[in-house]
Amino acid sequence: MQTLIWNNLTQEEKRQALARPAQKVGESIKQAVDAIRENVAQNGDNALFELCEKFDKVKLTSLVVSPEEIAAASARISPALAQAIQQAKANIEAFHKAQQNQEIDIETQAGVRCQVVTRPISRVGLYIPGGSAPLFSTVLMLAIPAKIAGCKKIVLCSPPPIADEILYTAQLCGVETIYAVGGAQAIFAMAQGTETVAKVDKIFGPGNAFVTEAKRQVVQSGTAIDMPAGPSEVLVIADEAADPEFVASDLLSQAEHGADSQVILATTNAQLAAQTEQAIARQLARLPRAETASKALSHSRIFIAESLAQAVAISNEYAPEHLIVQTQNARALLPELDNAGSIFLGAYSPESMGDYASGTNHVLPTYGYTKTYSSLGLADFSKRMTVQELSPEGFKNLAKTVEAMAEAEQLDAHKQAVSIRLAKLNAQ
Amino acid sequence: MQTLIWNNLTQEEKRQALARPAQKVGESIKQAVDAIRENVAQNGDNALFELCEKFDKVKLTSLVVSPEEIAAASARISPALAQAIQQAKANIEAFHKAQQNQEIDIETQAGVRCQVVTRPISRVGLYIPGGSAPLFSTVLMLAIPAKIAGCKKIVLCSPPPIADEILYTAQLCGVETIYAVGGAQAIFAMAQGTETVAKVDKIFGPGNAFVTEAKRQVVQSGTAIDMPAGPSEVLVIADEAADPEFVASDLLSQAEHGADSQVILATTNAQLAAQTEQAIARQLARLPRAETASKALSHSRIFIAESLAQAVAISNEYAPEHLIVQTQNARALLPELDNAGSIFLGAYSPESMGDYASGTNHVLPTYGYTKTYSSLGLADFSKRMTVQELSPEGFKNLAKTVEAMAEAEQLDAHKQAVSIRLAKLNAQ
Repeated sequence: MQTLIWNNLTQEEKRQALARPAQKVGESIKQAVDAIRENVAQNGDNALFELCEKFDKVKLTSLVVSPEEIAAASARISPALAQAIQQAKANIEAFHKAQQNQEIDIETQAGVRCQVVTRPISRVGLYIPGGSAPLFSTVLMLAIPAKIAGCKKIVLCSPPPIADEILYTAQLCGVETIYAVGGAQAIFAMAQGTETVAKVDKIFGPGNAFVTEAKRQVVQSGTAIDMPAGPSEVLVIADEAADPEFVASDLLSQAEHGADSQVILATTNAQLAAQTEQAIARQLARLPRAETASKALSHSRIFIAESLAQAVAISNEYAPEHLIVQTQNARALLPELDNAGSIFLGAYSPESMGDYASGTNHVLPTYGYTKTYSSLGLADFSKRMTVQELSPEGFKNLAKTVEAMAEAEQLDAHKQAVSIRLAKLNAQ
Repeated sequence: MQTLIWNNLTQEEKRQALARPAQKVGESIKQAVDAIRENVAQNGDNALFELCEKFDKVKLTSLVVSPEEIAAASARISPALAQAIQQAKANIEAFHKAQQNQEIDIETQAGVRCQVVTRPISRVGLYIPGGSAPLFSTVLMLAIPAKIAGCKKIVLCSPPPIADEILYTAQLCGVETIYAVGGAQAIFAMAQGTETVAKVDKIFGPGNAFVTEAKRQVVQSGTAIDMPAGPSEVLVIADEAADPEFVASDLLSQAEHGADSQVILATTNAQLAAQTEQAIARQLARLPRAETASKALSHSRIFIAESLAQAVAISNEYAPEHLIVQTQNARALLPELDNAGSIFLGAYSPESMGDYASGTNHVLPTYGYTKTYSSLGLADFSKRMTVQELSPEGFKNLAKTVEAMAEAEQLDAHKQAVSIRLAKLNAQ
């Protein structure tokens, strides 16, 4: 990791030090995804069978995972893991249930009643990547809020062979149909619908460059997605009270995600910075994913800040996905923290806790999007509609106002809709 | 308007009857917008001066509207219109203040504290189109929630000459800087920043095809926008209790927006349908924008439904931007209405009321996006972050769970971040 003293940097050096690597989608990925889109549109299920054989090397007989397969997979989950998943589920449920909207229902003036009402998004599709490490925790993060929101249809796609943990967690969370479909073809299948795969209104979940490109494309044709994707990242703010072993372990848990992960430490204490680097070296040696983590660390940075206020300013400018605060009084900094996906306060709140089981959602905006996007929550599985109802008296009280404004905007039919009613009321 | 009996349509005819016209952005628009983007990126303010002269036929000396110009414009607003705008402002403020988030702060289990905190989006840019009809009502709809949310920087772009009503409303709502910049160049100026125009994080507001394409483009490079754009639309549900003159006036206020507006009536009563058509013909004759409205009506539809339940189903499938319910007991239908931007209940709640002054926001998802997007509200000017803080006791209670899950996902550094802390706690 490169250590930089913030005050020694020029404006341009600061900008570069906080810049993320450019995210360019190669033409070859775009072309491959275009071809998959057309294939799914034209051949439906047949395309899914064919692409599964090609990419996942699996010859399926059915795109739908049967109840028997799910039951068998669930029976193979160890009791200890099942209990862990259930505890995580309870916490995530508690936190997302607490996000249920209060209904808003007020009179803005006498006789003018205005409301905000919330409705679930009807049909949602969850995507869970395949690979050797089964991301069943992401199933919890997507299916639990979908269920609490009341989405009528919740389906899940994942490439075969689907890990037991994913099948177990999906049925535990009430996912109604699981398709053994992965990659860009899964995204297009859910966006367009096929003979077997249900068409959905909104698609959630992480994926590789092909999945990300497919999600970007379906947005253009009207399917909503959770949020823009980018590599995972963490920023740790630490002072002299922090334990360098803890800080190192948090930086490493981000670094192991991928070679493109970004890891930043902003500290007021140069000694802590040095000790953390030593701790990283020690801990890294024990990790199976040491090579990946090393690559991520090679483009990561330590900033020495003159004060906690400066460290906070660095963090707000970088706008990290995960923000860990390990200082004497971490909570005291919270009011100043503006841009982050999820914030972890204090020595005993490592990112792992939120990644799995504290109750917060681990699907978070990255790549600086925390400046404008929210961490995934119940709100993402529902939408708000406004309602207004005017009594004849309320209407009368507001009629002249609306007539004057419509006239000034030269929208005469808007004015007429008021005038015709007003004439009728006045004639009564 | 074409009248169709819903039960007589085949599945495919129903689909077509509710389909929106395809929204294709022509290559010529894309190329023109590409050129503007590059021009603004390379030449900054100079590009804005040049494009203003080219498109708006105005030779500016400053891109910023001066306080003196704003004061002079405000002095020209008639007292009656000023009063109307202030009344609308009071209602819109009341409704958007009511949307302030309750803070969420719970213990998901003992010692595991999870919160949702809300922060304003720091810098927002509002775009208001030019043209003969000054859309000052949109200034209210964008600037009021931005101010309530607490956005630190609120700027507004509109092509010169900017109407007095826009300048008056903008200063009334606390917009800090108004730029005389319009079109796609305004969107790129706010997204990238120029010598004069402040860079913002999120851009709001309507516009023509060039503005819409520019908004679509800036999303790809990291600037957020309010929502996808499409032509305006209304669906009216009416039964025999509805007044055909009222229904006609509501359909016409939508139709006058543009030739591409969509207007739909779903009614249980064939006689009301016929009477509404007659009333439209009568009212149309009195409208300056009759030609535009006629064009919109030519591709609009009346559906005869067998029941109110069927009319509601039609509406939910179409998912209109505006939904007006004029039935014996309009409120009784509300629980069944799933997809709409804003709902207007009863005979005295014409769309004009919400467009200007009831308090609800008139920036709404269109083109079927109400299935997944919300009507614009306070939430769009802020973002939610989650926070967690575990006590040593809370950490201990959850440690085994997280270790088990991280191990199952083969994320050893995630597990290690827990194990290192647990060892330290156990050693104490």
